[in-house]
Amino acid sequence: MTKALFLNCSLKSSNEESNTEALMKEVITHFNKENVTSEIVRIVDYNIKFGVSEDEGYGDEWPEVFNKVKQADIIIIGTPVWLGEKSSVAKMVMERLDGGSGLTNDKGQYIYYNKVVGVVITGNEDGAKNAASSILYGLTHIGFTIPPNVDTYWVGEAGPGPSYIEAEGYKNDFTMEHAKIMAYNLMHFARMLKENPIPAEGNVVEQS
Amino acid sequence: MTKALFLNCSLKSSNEESNTEALMKEVITHFNKENVTSEIVRIVDYNIKFGVSEDEGYGDEWPEVFNKVKQADIIIIGTPVWLGEKSSVAKMVMERLDGGSGLTNDKGQYIYYNKVVGVVITGNEDGAKNAASSILYGLTHIGFTIPPNVDTYWVGEAGPGPSYIEAEGYKNDFTMEHAKIMAYNLMHFARMLKENPIPAEGNVVEQS
Amino acid sequence: MTKALFLNCSLKSSNEESNTEALMKEVITHFNKENVTSEIVRIVDYNIKFGVSEDEGYGDEWPEVFNKVKQADIIIIGTPVWLGEKSSVAKMVMERLDGGSGLTNDKGQYIYYNKVVGVVITGNEDGAKNAASSILYGLTHIGFTIPPNVDTYWVGEAGPGPSYIEAEGYKNDFTMEHAKIMAYNLMHFARMLKENPIPAEGNVVEQS
Amino acid sequence: MTKALFLNCSLKSSNEESNTEALMKEVITHFNKENVTSEIVRIVDYNIKFGVSEDEGYGDEWPEVFNKVKQADIIIIGTPVWLGEKSSVAKMVMERLDGGSGLTNDKGQYIYYNKVVGVVITGNEDGAKNAASSILYGLTHIGFTIPPNVDTYWVGEAGPGPSYIEAEGYKNDFTMEHAKIMAYNLMHFARMLKENPIPAEGNVVEQS
Repeated sequence: MTKALFLNCSLKSSNEESNTEALMKEVITHFNKENVTSEIVRIVDYNIKFGVSEDEGYGDEWPEVFNKVKQADIIIIGTPVWLGEKSSVAKMVMERLDGGSGLTNDKGQYIYYNKVVGVVITGNEDGAKNAASSILYGLTHIGFTIPPNVDTYWVGEAGPGPSYIEAEGYKNDFTMEHAKIMAYNLMHFARMLKENPIPAEGNVVEQS
Repeated sequence: MTKALFLNCSLKSSNEESNTEALMKEVITHFNKENVTSEIVRIVDYNIKFGVSEDEGYGDEWPEVFNKVKQADIIIIGTPVWLGEKSSVAKMVMERLDGGSGLTNDKGQYIYYNKVVGVVITGNEDGAKNAASSILYGLTHIGFTIPPNVDTYWVGEAGPGPSYIEAEGYKNDFTMEHAKIMAYNLMHFARMLKENPIPAEGNVVEQS
Repeated sequence: MTKALFLNCSLKSSNEESNTEALMKEVITHFNKENVTSEIVRIVDYNIKFGVSEDEGYGDEWPEVFNKVKQADIIIIGTPVWLGEKSSVAKMVMERLDGGSGLTNDKGQYIYYNKVVGVVITGNEDGAKNAASSILYGLTHIGFTIPPNVDTYWVGEAGPGPSYIEAEGYKNDFTMEHAKIMAYNLMHFARMLKENPIPAEGNVVEQS
Repeated sequence: MTKALFLNCSLKSSNEESNTEALMKEVITHFNKENVTSEIVRIVDYNIKFGVSEDEGYGDEWPEVFNKVKQADIIIIGTPVWLGEKSSVAKMVMERLDGGSGLTNDKGQYIYYNKVVGVVITGNEDGAKNAASSILYGLTHIGFTIPPNVDTYWVGEAGPGPSYIEAEGYKNDFTMEHAKIMAYNLMHFARMLKENPIPAEGNVVEQS
């Protein structure tokens, strides 16, 4: 069965409503129809330490999240937009994922090979593409695959204003169509890579 | 008298209407009240060559534009948003300005010292802050000064849709307030630097 | 046979040596061993108009380049770094590719589906990742697929200095290893997508 | 007396050596000669909560840092480069500064008016300009002033390798010259704005 893991990088813990999570649920609707299982993790519910290693010790709960990453076929990073960019929590997650980028699978490829990644972004205004660009690039740089059209976002008109839930972003056809295309392309590629993993030719890294 | 030069980096020549120019005119309204003179240059009306020198020869019309830059106190770069970023024309202008960055004034400082810069950005959706960030950083890196709040922009909700003129962006209070604040801060700093130029201490560059 | 098209977005025409092209040739070395054909196009040798359509008329030579794009399985965008970013020529190419993003294949998917993309970047200093991020994101947003580790670059230490050729960048193990991994992953994915094209399920776009 | 506050956004606490701090000290050398006082704060030594308010309650130590910001004339953000970008800690600091952006001074301008900002960036490779661009833009957007040439950085050649201290980055003339120019321009502008604060004309914001 195909497993999707949603890492919600909201600045707020799960006792508060998250716009990003509301949009994630649109993606999940499509996964449900296709027997892809979904799990949402609210990052700030965990005690994640700043750092660039797999385990920063002393109560660091990243290893628990990282274990979920290892078992998932599809990773979706969700982030709000602040000052026109992804959140600090999203960057922290990328730094921790980078901390595992030295690991290899049993063929000697980077551990993220054959995993696919997408993004879900919400904000009251401008910054979604910048956030998408940064997250998708950072993760392909460490070994994830990016299918086409895996950036689902909603932002409002320039200036202060309501975000996704209050603005009823679900009425935006563009955003809803992208949620669907993203869900299907992530699923198609996850299955394709499960049946035909990336050949271990030309991409086996030397252990350092 | 304080001189403002608007470089409109639309992909369209001046026989076509420009959303960015429409928003520039809001800024000019404020300049007019304060005796700042304004000139708008539509970059693609000129034959500007790709390159990173002051003069690329063979019919290159950049030197004519560059001469206007040298005489202006305030430079405002205007750009549309395409794929979430500034236009290729805006990047071409930055490369050509960079081509003059080796020049120095009579005190030995970079030639752009005591000039201030702002941006005007329009697009149907997301990307204004990314464009602003890139342009303002690139120009401070070669010697321009950036007063506070000199990024004026309008973009609509996520997805395809009308741009500034058709969407009646002038009704957006945030955008209109920023056009005003930008105009005044550019003017305040241009005057301040005319009366008290940046002291030639610690920032005189060696001629290479 | 798998076809690779290299679009070299240097600011210089092909009568001048290009650092980016020198690094492209390292990638081509790997393609040659695997029966992938390679063609390099120096963009500024063509008269490409600014715009966001498939054909800007009046002597526009983009349609000729675009035809090559349509026939290629692998697209590699090459760019120098100026002011810490990709070149204006690279952005112009992205705008023109975006101009074709409304086209669909015979299954009703975006025309760039089943094509894969990578980047080759050179500069004297800092900016390669920014350039890679912008290009890869922009192209996945319009339908290209991004295999893991398809960003090959060389830049030197902070500050002015020689670029790839003069600095003998080919001696940089990291850059050379990435050129190889990129070549193989582009090839693996191009073949995978030729044998198993992305299913036309959930990603068929409505004609507008 | 002019006060400079250095916010070191290293991922490491102050019991570990920081490359960014080593480069900050070069800037401080110039400040010392000119009677500018300097204080370095290592952000992760404090318990700073994620959020976008002035005080996130429950043991949040941001108010203590924010108080230092309010009293400083010059703010310098220091950050390492990870995945080609500023650190998550730097983004967290920007989010918290943004949380104070609704405050106004006694003239009704944003509270950051008349304060100037610069950046110090170190990394083993590529990403300094991206980090500089993001930080400087985000802070001018909320009211800081950016003098020319206030981005001081050191990064090495492409690929893994030593960072500033181990690589003896202090031998890089470009980086050392920029540290000096930055120090002087920050000082010149801080003094200019102390003697001639930004006039409260056109930039007084309405209390919301």
